[in-house]
Amino acid sequence: MYSFKNDYSEGAHPKILEALIASNLEQTEGYGEDHYSQKAAWLLKEMIGRDDIAVHFFVGGTQTNLTAISAFLRPHQAVIAAATGHIATHETGAIEATGHKVITVETSDGKLRMDHIQSVLDGHTDEHMVSPKMVYISNSTEVGSIYKKAELEGLSQFCKANNLLLYLDGARLGSALTSKENDMTLLDLGRLTDVFYIGGTKNGALMGEALIICNDFLKEDFRFHIKQKGALLAKGRLLGIQFEALFKDNLYFELAEHANQMAVRLQDEIKKLGFSFLISSPSNQVFPIFPNSVIEKLQEKYAFHIWEKVDDSYSAIRLVTSWATKEEAVSNFVKDLNNIVF
Amino acid sequence: MYSFKNDYSEGAHPKILEALIASNLEQTEGYGEDHYSQKAAWLLKEMIGRDDIAVHFFVGGTQTNLTAISAFLRPHQAVIAAATGHIATHETGAIEATGHKVITVETSDGKLRMDHIQSVLDGHTDEHMVSPKMVYISNSTEVGSIYKKAELEGLSQFCKANNLLLYLDGARLGSALTSKENDMTLLDLGRLTDVFYIGGTKNGALMGEALIICNDFLKEDFRFHIKQKGALLAKGRLLGIQFEALFKDNLYFELAEHANQMAVRLQDEIKKLGFSFLISSPSNQVFPIFPNSVIEKLQEKYAFHIWEKVDDSYSAIRLVTSWATKEEAVSNFVKDLNNIVF
Amino acid sequence: MYSFKNDYSEGAHPKILEALIASNLEQTEGYGEDHYSQKAAWLLKEMIGRDDIAVHFFVGGTQTNLTAISAFLRPHQAVIAAATGHIATHETGAIEATGHKVITVETSDGKLRMDHIQSVLDGHTDEHMVSPKMVYISNSTEVGSIYKKAELEGLSQFCKANNLLLYLDGARLGSALTSKENDMTLLDLGRLTDVFYIGGTKNGALMGEALIICNDFLKEDFRFHIKQKGALLAKGRLLGIQFEALFKDNLYFELAEHANQMAVRLQDEIKKLGFSFLISSPSNQVFPIFPNSVIEKLQEKYAFHIWEKVDDSYSAIRLVTSWATKEEAVSNFVKDLNNIVF
Amino acid sequence: MYSFKNDYSEGAHPKILEALIASNLEQTEGYGEDHYSQKAAWLLKEMIGRDDIAVHFFVGGTQTNLTAISAFLRPHQAVIAAATGHIATHETGAIEATGHKVITVETSDGKLRMDHIQSVLDGHTDEHMVSPKMVYISNSTEVGSIYKKAELEGLSQFCKANNLLLYLDGARLGSALTSKENDMTLLDLGRLTDVFYIGGTKNGALMGEALIICNDFLKEDFRFHIKQKGALLAKGRLLGIQFEALFKDNLYFELAEHANQMAVRLQDEIKKLGFSFLISSPSNQVFPIFPNSVIEKLQEKYAFHIWEKVDDSYSAIRLVTSWATKEEAVSNFVKDLNNIVF
Repeated sequence: MYSFKNDYSEGAHPKILEALIASNLEQTEGYGEDHYSQKAAWLLKEMIGRDDIAVHFFVGGTQTNLTAISAFLRPHQAVIAAATGHIATHETGAIEATGHKVITVETSDGKLRMDHIQSVLDGHTDEHMVSPKMVYISNSTEVGSIYKKAELEGLSQFCKANNLLLYLDGARLGSALTSKENDMTLLDLGRLTDVFYIGGTKNGALMGEALIICNDFLKEDFRFHIKQKGALLAKGRLLGIQFEALFKDNLYFELAEHANQMAVRLQDEIKKLGFSFLISSPSNQVFPIFPNSVIEKLQEKYAFHIWEKVDDSYSAIRLVTSWATKEEAVSNFVKDLNNIVF
Repeated sequence: MYSFKNDYSEGAHPKILEALIASNLEQTEGYGEDHYSQKAAWLLKEMIGRDDIAVHFFVGGTQTNLTAISAFLRPHQAVIAAATGHIATHETGAIEATGHKVITVETSDGKLRMDHIQSVLDGHTDEHMVSPKMVYISNSTEVGSIYKKAELEGLSQFCKANNLLLYLDGARLGSALTSKENDMTLLDLGRLTDVFYIGGTKNGALMGEALIICNDFLKEDFRFHIKQKGALLAKGRLLGIQFEALFKDNLYFELAEHANQMAVRLQDEIKKLGFSFLISSPSNQVFPIFPNSVIEKLQEKYAFHIWEKVDDSYSAIRLVTSWATKEEAVSNFVKDLNNIVF
Repeated sequence: MYSFKNDYSEGAHPKILEALIASNLEQTEGYGEDHYSQKAAWLLKEMIGRDDIAVHFFVGGTQTNLTAISAFLRPHQAVIAAATGHIATHETGAIEATGHKVITVETSDGKLRMDHIQSVLDGHTDEHMVSPKMVYISNSTEVGSIYKKAELEGLSQFCKANNLLLYLDGARLGSALTSKENDMTLLDLGRLTDVFYIGGTKNGALMGEALIICNDFLKEDFRFHIKQKGALLAKGRLLGIQFEALFKDNLYFELAEHANQMAVRLQDEIKKLGFSFLISSPSNQVFPIFPNSVIEKLQEKYAFHIWEKVDDSYSAIRLVTSWATKEEAVSNFVKDLNNIVF
Repeated sequence: MYSFKNDYSEGAHPKILEALIASNLEQTEGYGEDHYSQKAAWLLKEMIGRDDIAVHFFVGGTQTNLTAISAFLRPHQAVIAAATGHIATHETGAIEATGHKVITVETSDGKLRMDHIQSVLDGHTDEHMVSPKMVYISNSTEVGSIYKKAELEGLSQFCKANNLLLYLDGARLGSALTSKENDMTLLDLGRLTDVFYIGGTKNGALMGEALIICNDFLKEDFRFHIKQKGALLAKGRLLGIQFEALFKDNLYFELAEHANQMAVRLQDEIKKLGFSFLISSPSNQVFPIFPNSVIEKLQEKYAFHIWEKVDDSYSAIRLVTSWATKEEAVSNFVKDLNNIVF
């Protein structure tokens, strides 16, 4: 059984494990005040091209989202997200648990656009309603799509003009930034968002996300919030060591690129076999539509999520590739699919 | 500079790292539904002597406390703790952030006793006050003391009689259970508490705490709470692998015993040099009282916390030992102290 | 300027004021433990036909909703509501502020039906999502529609079968129960819901809502929640006195009936003048569609809410009648409308 | 049975009822946007001597405290209060329910002083602890004591110097400001606090408290918070009408002065009979110490709270006077006490 279920089925990339091993018996300060975390923060500042950003490391994505969003909003303020947004669907109400409404908007492709946000603003006009204050987007999105630079520029200007904070969930940012369709870099994110995070868990780390606070007003006392939400790791160095390993020699982008290549190959080969897709994804999640009978056969050898029923006979499945996906596994999948179909 | 600042200055015990390395490229289910986590849970059930307990793994102690306590209490209910209790002092209001008051009681030695709890119950009589529902104790406590079996039996009966839940924070449970003064085992904890956790972070793991829910009424839907609080680790296996390594061959207790031995040695040798202690600790934290000038000298070579001002000339410091504390470091400390004093 | 803006533009019905005056200098117990509140509760138990219900008085509707819903749900549980539901739109995120997600469903007429709820259940399958636990409906709804007995029977059975709590917001329950289309009584509500409230503010009281807890499991410690949410009125008798006055001689239903009659008259006369309605409402809110030019003219003499833009030339307005609406005001409105149009 | 149990045993002062009756059938805007509320706010601005303050009306004290405190604090910030403070003892954890710790300090007389606050600041030094941000005081305090102007000046300067907000709970402000020992006016409160409230419920209103926000930074969006906490009264005029009646002709102070006079008389006469007091109170709560046998006899004719056991034979009771306390009742109490004793 080979799993295309997600991008966190394996442990860490060997180089990351090596870094953990090499530093293992060294004594360091706790709670992220060690020199590894400082070094990793410095590397990220370099890549983002800004000295004045704040970098904080977290263990997981939901933890990052709930800590940051609740730290930045006042009690009456809400966050706007696509209906498919991770905070809206798959975080067990983590944002609401901190007291804030998530206002959702239906989108065609998981991407929030200015008119979506404008329609929310139009409908929230007085103190009987929550006050929309933050825009939450994911790149890549939960359905594999990515934002183009012009789109992010537009959202950024729109948010500034409307006194909204722009938050970018980068759980799969590596895949987005190394996609063939991508035209952005970390410099753009540092310039255009108020806050974003760089996901490590889904791109080769044991665990870890790096939150980047670009907006000066959001920085104050942020470590209090991390601690209060149970997110301040005692051995914080574990996150610093991993992010240093990911960013000192471009490893982060190499791993993401591999994931994307595997996804492109899967998508291309499946297309050749005559199948269509729920959405054309330029990143490491692909959503082919198969007859249910084919899906059942595939399930004998492969693990994956059934994403959506298309009609009575067809469903879309989700195949996720990662830094750890073997080329052989992709070939085998395509071969097996071919055998099932013909 | 050698650090006695805490028991999480190093990475993991080598055997734990080895287990992580060995399993690294294996694909497993996410979110703690992997076979390693199941195995670790099974090992703990064996040791606790109960099949019917629920085992959940967390990354850190504050995270464990806030998730569990908020899951188990209704909004109007409060938790009683010693004024020195970790949830009362060093979790940045994490429990209050989930909506619950922490009622504190002054104690002489960090240990909560029946009369302390009774006095809280006496003072909370109607709906204008919160309703005390849970008793929070730590073993070992934040000042190094430990509970004896008879004391825990008493608290357990008292809680049952008063319809209170008994929660034991075991961040340093290893040290408590291997202390020379200890007369309890994990079986007793499983029998006497409603819920407790076994700390891994401070006893050799990279990170990790195992929450044990003994009370049947508290088990329902608990994974929802873990996810909502951002505490459901994507690569949950990391916790399972570490706890399996800690408990399959008694490693957990060996490591804690080493920490205790180092603490005993420190305490004995310092006593021989004529110093007294803030509290006589039978576990891995010791609190010698030194003249401030001595402390300053020690700080040139050793890192530790200054715990409490005793008078204008004397202060108590905290020395923490761990699985990683070297005998040589203890000897050197004593030698250096001797040189400073004489 | 005459206002059809809402049903709380005036003070209280004179009989209610009289009751307050008559009792004014009497000393009573505070916090709702006075004999007036007990008498009012007893009257409601009589009318609902159940001795075993709990009755609690509140000052306002949002306060009632947030106190009750947060008392009854565990942290990971969510409430399902129509997208037009008051808790979803006009309570400034009050429910989310207590930690709970409001899951909304689009409806055609403000009424939640079994298939709406089933679709929510189908989409919430594991611990990565909130757990839907309560169904929130309003009667009459926020757009004036009402539930028939068969519909409520259906919802009630569905909720029981699916382990869901059924909560009915009765801010305008008087108007619903005295509507010509209504076939229910308070006895049905006591039999079919887990909890509901009877609105006084919008039906002749100075302020006040009576929360009726029918489900035994929800009663425990409820006064703690009232106090914690700042909803325990020091002079609780003010609510008891008013509800006694409303229910001892059928005043509550007489007032609501008057409001409905005024609404029927408005609706009938406007229809005769050739206008259509956004929704055909059997209760005290009516939603005629007028040309924008007509609306502007009406605004010179009448206050009301513009509810919804229908197209570039037409909008729907909301006219609300109440116990205090004068027949003359209705006649004048129709006359003025006639003059504007012809 | 005559009650000295509290200052909210009766309804409203007749002049307040008259104002409600006179305005009863007038149509006004809802939610406090009526002209009565505006007029009342204007009167208060006049008396406080500041045009730039914000005035918001609430129904009750706990509601006021929880709405204001949670609106003004960020999630990691805490409020400091005397251990006897109302928010610390008798609000069922209302502040914690909004996510904030209440840090308590033992005091001798219910009054918080600079050294109390300094000791809290000294103990809260980093992100592992909450961040103290607000100082909560009551005037008069929960044990009847009052602040002198010099004390409030000192606290005000201390708070400014330490970047703390000063919040004054004025549930019994009328009694404080008309006490013989008082040397402050509303002008001083407007000058020295960041925010305070003027209690109506305990001084002649049916219900109602006026929150005064003096600090410009705290004003923004405050009505959202009122609505979110269920505290925005639909018929908001009820509060405006009452506060206009209380402040247009000095009624507020006359009522409070009467309450104080009755308390002075009680205190003086009881002293003459040879009894001592738990605390010498200059306001409308007095705390005589009686033999338990005397208390039992008094309970046959009078209602009051037993405040505190003094020793096995003696207890302190609390007698509260109000605008409604009859001179005759005071005389009778003293007579009865005399008869019991001699």
